[in-house]
Amino acid sequence: MCGSSSGRSNKPPMRVAITGATGNIGYALAFRIASGELLGRDQPVILHLVDIPGMDDKLKGVLMELDDCAFPLLEQTVTTTDLKVGFNDIDVALLVGSKPRSKGMERGDLLNENGKIFVSQGRALNDHAKRTVKVLVVGNPANTNCLIAMKNAPNLPSENFNAMTRLDHNRGLAQLAQQVGTHPRFIRNFAIWGNHSSTMFPDLHNTTVNGKRALDLVSQEWYNNEFIPIVQQRGAAIIKARGASSAASAGNSAIDHVRDWVLGSSEWVSMSVPTDGRAYGIEKDLIFSFPCTVSNGRYTIVPNLTLNEFSRQKIEETQKELVQERNLVEHLLK
Amino acid sequence: MCGSSSGRSNKPPMRVAITGATGNIGYALAFRIASGELLGRDQPVILHLVDIPGMDDKLKGVLMELDDCAFPLLEQTVTTTDLKVGFNDIDVALLVGSKPRSKGMERGDLLNENGKIFVSQGRALNDHAKRTVKVLVVGNPANTNCLIAMKNAPNLPSENFNAMTRLDHNRGLAQLAQQVGTHPRFIRNFAIWGNHSSTMFPDLHNTTVNGKRALDLVSQEWYNNEFIPIVQQRGAAIIKARGASSAASAGNSAIDHVRDWVLGSSEWVSMSVPTDGRAYGIEKDLIFSFPCTVSNGRYTIVPNLTLNEFSRQKIEETQKELVQERNLVEHLLK
Repeated sequence: MCGSSSGRSNKPPMRVAITGATGNIGYALAFRIASGELLGRDQPVILHLVDIPGMDDKLKGVLMELDDCAFPLLEQTVTTTDLKVGFNDIDVALLVGSKPRSKGMERGDLLNENGKIFVSQGRALNDHAKRTVKVLVVGNPANTNCLIAMKNAPNLPSENFNAMTRLDHNRGLAQLAQQVGTHPRFIRNFAIWGNHSSTMFPDLHNTTVNGKRALDLVSQEWYNNEFIPIVQQRGAAIIKARGASSAASAGNSAIDHVRDWVLGSSEWVSMSVPTDGRAYGIEKDLIFSFPCTVSNGRYTIVPNLTLNEFSRQKIEETQKELVQERNLVEHLLK
Repeated sequence: MCGSSSGRSNKPPMRVAITGATGNIGYALAFRIASGELLGRDQPVILHLVDIPGMDDKLKGVLMELDDCAFPLLEQTVTTTDLKVGFNDIDVALLVGSKPRSKGMERGDLLNENGKIFVSQGRALNDHAKRTVKVLVVGNPANTNCLIAMKNAPNLPSENFNAMTRLDHNRGLAQLAQQVGTHPRFIRNFAIWGNHSSTMFPDLHNTTVNGKRALDLVSQEWYNNEFIPIVQQRGAAIIKARGASSAASAGNSAIDHVRDWVLGSSEWVSMSVPTDGRAYGIEKDLIFSFPCTVSNGRYTIVPNLTLNEFSRQKIEETQKELVQERNLVEHLLK
């Protein structure tokens, strides 16, 4: 690379790894990242497309298509099935690849099967990634997978590990906007609490729409019996309609999460982050979704919110599930 | 929609239709357009997702996923299997849907099967789209499909109709950049001439790399026997590697084409445009790829290039193919 005849900045490139890169979410992600949507229009990127052995041809196909876009910001693309190469010196890791639940599989089996993947990935991040790497776990069960990766990367700061509840967050914005007849961009202070699962708690108690309290605009009945279950079960509804699980919208939420994490957000966003036992009484050592703001690459859990009895109960329920999940993978957390 | 608490501009939204919206290219396109990559970060859009009858559930699935992205610029999404609705008042049409060649199908059959689709689409554009609509045909055989649509929309200016050779253009940039060890962004004045097919002519005679003549940096042997066939046959190579045809890269090129058409490009880009019998001696009434520049929403074929014997012969060959294709669909051009 020489000269600078393009209008592009001379920032050094950032390295972004995607696991499960040949899958549908990975495919939706890679091209948007290469076009500058993740890290900004002046930030060159090097993509690390990572997948499991046997996916080499498909990786090559995605690489060829990325080449065929001639993206000005895409400095280089690395394809690999080796985590050492895949995570070497990376700034961002999007851990998308995971095993889906197969027929007859118990929840414990699913956690364990995936857990092994995230043990290896945590270790490889620990040994090869930049010390400032931001890790977002998208592959399900995302929160517990994230906990496993974090615990297996003891030399990285724990706050470098997040799981994705931004898709649930965005789904909540969309549902509320439709119900009150506005656009999601006019909604503030919405949050998802807890686990990315059907126990998640979509919280409207602090939410405003065009400056008005959301809970004054909708009925409690709609909130309890429609909004909450629709958001919790949206994934299944998408599969039913499309005949395939959410791909582009999941990829989009991963972009939203990491972009805000890197570039900042003064608006509330939902991020699943490691707990330290202090915030809102949630016990230590879980990956739990909270309303957060971000500045200078560091998230802050929105402090001092008052939780009513309804919210406390919902939050307790999703915490309980996360503790159960953690108990099932205890042996993978050393 | 009310208020303006977002930082978004107050530009009126533009309507963008995508046919074959549930297919792989349509799916790759819709989310990038909704995020602002087609028309700019300050331009609200209304997406018209169009597909054939029977695809209603899948359309609904894509709509649900678009909702779940809460895109600030996406004002509304219309899903329909009715061209009247799909093309009503649109500013941009991306005609992606087409029938693929099935086993044993002759070229004439393929042209005719697709031709019927583009007759209906041309008529519907004629009757329902904005008079300034920009139509890009992506579905193959793209150039002749475009000619059919144009001829069936007599009340729209013919220059509103383009076919896509930008994917071939970007593929050429990528191959040349790899060969000379640079990045595509340092390449200028590359062009694809003729048909989006294996007769296309990728022209390096005016091309520069970091200001140096490209043909001084590569051998004539590499140009003739590697570069040209690789670019011409890249589609098949992708299918072989991925096990699926180009989707994200095709979508990306459609975005590049229309973005440059709307927002301008002082750099050469390859666009398949209607011929008037004057430019470079190409006969009238074909959709032919030329090097173009764009300003104020109007493309100009780069004038006064000197074509050597080699180039003239290649251009003659691809012109001949386009004339043959036109002869096979003569009856659809009234």
